[in-house]
Amino acid sequence: MIAEIICSGTEILLGSILNTNARYLSQRLAEHAIDVHYQTTVGDNIGRLAQSFEIAAGRSDIVICCGGLGPTEDDVTVRALAQFLQVPLILHEPTFKAVSQKMKRWGFQMNRLVAKQCYVPHNAVVFENTVGTAPGILCEARYENGALRKWFLLLPGPPREMEPMFIEKALPALFKKAQILRASFKVRTLRVAGLTEAQVAPKVNDLLKLKPPLTVGIYAKLAEVELKVMAKSGSASQSAAMVRRTENEIRRRLGKNIYGADDQTLSSVVGKLLKEKKKTLSAAESCTGGLFSSVLTDTPGSSDYFLGSVIAYDNWVKTRLLGVDDLLLRKKGAVSAEVAQKMAQSIRLLFRTDIGIGITGIAGPSGALSKKPVGLVYIALALGNRSFCKRCLFPGDRPDIKSRAATEALDLLRLSLIP
Amino acid sequence: MIAEIICSGTEILLGSILNTNARYLSQRLAEHAIDVHYQTTVGDNIGRLAQSFEIAAGRSDIVICCGGLGPTEDDVTVRALAQFLQVPLILHEPTFKAVSQKMKRWGFQMNRLVAKQCYVPHNAVVFENTVGTAPGILCEARYENGALRKWFLLLPGPPREMEPMFIEKALPALFKKAQILRASFKVRTLRVAGLTEAQVAPKVNDLLKLKPPLTVGIYAKLAEVELKVMAKSGSASQSAAMVRRTENEIRRRLGKNIYGADDQTLSSVVGKLLKEKKKTLSAAESCTGGLFSSVLTDTPGSSDYFLGSVIAYDNWVKTRLLGVDDLLLRKKGAVSAEVAQKMAQSIRLLFRTDIGIGITGIAGPSGALSKKPVGLVYIALALGNRSFCKRCLFPGDRPDIKSRAATEALDLLRLSLIP
Repeated sequence: MIAEIICSGTEILLGSILNTNARYLSQRLAEHAIDVHYQTTVGDNIGRLAQSFEIAAGRSDIVICCGGLGPTEDDVTVRALAQFLQVPLILHEPTFKAVSQKMKRWGFQMNRLVAKQCYVPHNAVVFENTVGTAPGILCEARYENGALRKWFLLLPGPPREMEPMFIEKALPALFKKAQILRASFKVRTLRVAGLTEAQVAPKVNDLLKLKPPLTVGIYAKLAEVELKVMAKSGSASQSAAMVRRTENEIRRRLGKNIYGADDQTLSSVVGKLLKEKKKTLSAAESCTGGLFSSVLTDTPGSSDYFLGSVIAYDNWVKTRLLGVDDLLLRKKGAVSAEVAQKMAQSIRLLFRTDIGIGITGIAGPSGALSKKPVGLVYIALALGNRSFCKRCLFPGDRPDIKSRAATEALDLLRLSLIP
Repeated sequence: MIAEIICSGTEILLGSILNTNARYLSQRLAEHAIDVHYQTTVGDNIGRLAQSFEIAAGRSDIVICCGGLGPTEDDVTVRALAQFLQVPLILHEPTFKAVSQKMKRWGFQMNRLVAKQCYVPHNAVVFENTVGTAPGILCEARYENGALRKWFLLLPGPPREMEPMFIEKALPALFKKAQILRASFKVRTLRVAGLTEAQVAPKVNDLLKLKPPLTVGIYAKLAEVELKVMAKSGSASQSAAMVRRTENEIRRRLGKNIYGADDQTLSSVVGKLLKEKKKTLSAAESCTGGLFSSVLTDTPGSSDYFLGSVIAYDNWVKTRLLGVDDLLLRKKGAVSAEVAQKMAQSIRLLFRTDIGIGITGIAGPSGALSKKPVGLVYIALALGNRSFCKRCLFPGDRPDIKSRAATEALDLLRLSLIP
């Protein structure tokens, strides 16, 4: 069974609103193991809507169309479907009665525009709208003497009307009518830090080529990579087992570079490790300007292990608060391994924490020196009397470099906390 | 000129991510008076992509396709376009050189997968990717003996790569090649801080009802509101005059609450004011955990006025580094106007700056006390011997509250710097 989503709405085509309905429907359909091959957005225009129905019917089994069911003149989806299916629109008495009662209850007059919503294609299954007024509509079309069956589902556009109608009424009705096997779909997202997409891909190249029912996808984020393992089978336990086997294989190949799964963030994983090991943390930030500490404190409960930071943006602060030697600054420069290590050691002693972090670099666009380009960042960790420093060269613009540096610092911290 | 947007990405069809690219492109095209009739999302599949190109070419003049330009096996957009246009792929030497240099600078090996991105359809116009590696591609196809011309624009999927490439390079090239009249459309975005959408709307209600050729739109962001004035006319000067008149009227009504226009950010406006007034700044942050300083340092050149901060997440840091009295902490609590003011005054003296900021609050989800709910934040400013404090109650979850507090602190700072 292949499904296709059509969203009707000029305001989406103007970019005035984000199309969250397409995402909601795609998520629900994926959970029920129904493949979505296309999402289309089209304006509130009868001709273009009818044409979109025709294209969709030619390549998908289920066509779900959101929006354009309302009372105003530019709500034309029902007429477009009737035109495409060549069936008449008839007044749906139960809907007319329900809408009339609602209007009365809300203190509005029933008028021609509101009544328009009560007309549905001949032989349609109708779903009451418990939130608004426009009902949902499910039509079946048969082709090739009934051998080929297609389903057209029309849903209201407002998410608070569409979502409960879809999940509670329309999807069960569709399953029943279309006799869709409720196959079980399982997705697992593995999160990778410290490697780029181009470094991860060759290690899992064979897995990326897998075909359904078991597939692996790779997605690059700003400073991390996601691997999505997806399995479809007749039972939940079988799908879970397929995903587990593939997850184990990926973990074997990528090892410590996998920092977490599903909804975990690097910040939450680091927080959990610090709590488990009963370690406290402080940071001395220069080029990241507070971003490392801010990301760290996005995790609830971070006050248990994070005491605070000094943002030493100006060299005077590095000297005065963090005891970075004036001579060292002049000799090695503020962006150097020596200064990063001194920052990490000093903040650890000043804030009396187990671990101290020091970050210094050039976020750009200006500030580059000979042999010190924009994107050069030194990240140092001081743990007890030990300390070490990593030299990094990050691509991107100023916010990118800040963000990559903060992520790298979190990952170095994570690696220092695991065996 | 009719445009159509195709987004390639299985993760959009799975509902894993929201399609923000379609919205971004639709907004920019609308601003330039180019109608978008369709947005389509299709998986990373050569056959379906090529078919989508065919459908799009049959009904639109400009086809813009996002995503699938990357290094991995499932990035197939370029091959799909070459297949549809029936042109060979050739190695684009300048791209290969630029990507090789980038890989070297970033410390990565050039491999087959990365090199794949340097192949483009024969006769394509190529746009360098200044952020990532995959270049943008513009191809022209002629039909009916050259009488009918269609343009195909391929853009990278990551928004931070796609957006600057589209607006700075691809759109101007498209305008030139397709000879699109661009003089007629003018947009001006006015940025409002310190008021909610529900507070702004009644003040401009008559303007929001205007119809083309002059319209005003209102858009709520997390902690600010945008008003977009759009005018379309036969000449650039006429459109500009229409926008200017409306802008003046909006400024008359909203006064100081308009902090800037178009690409300005609160951080850049505050930075400009600090530079002009030759004032220096430091901050003592508690609940924002470094976010205020991080946003401030997103603006290039911020080291001219921002010296640094202390993130006093733990009370021990407030006492030890910022001299907040233990008794005061016990009597008034860490989240109080008195502590915020002391933090602002202390950081100003410690860092020897003209202005000190103190932020303390409850970001949640835990930490609420009787009469001190989640979202309660005190923001204090110390300017010379003067200081004042604002009590705020912010809605939303933990990252929202942090973000709203940082924005409010920037806005208080801005208001203190203007007459």
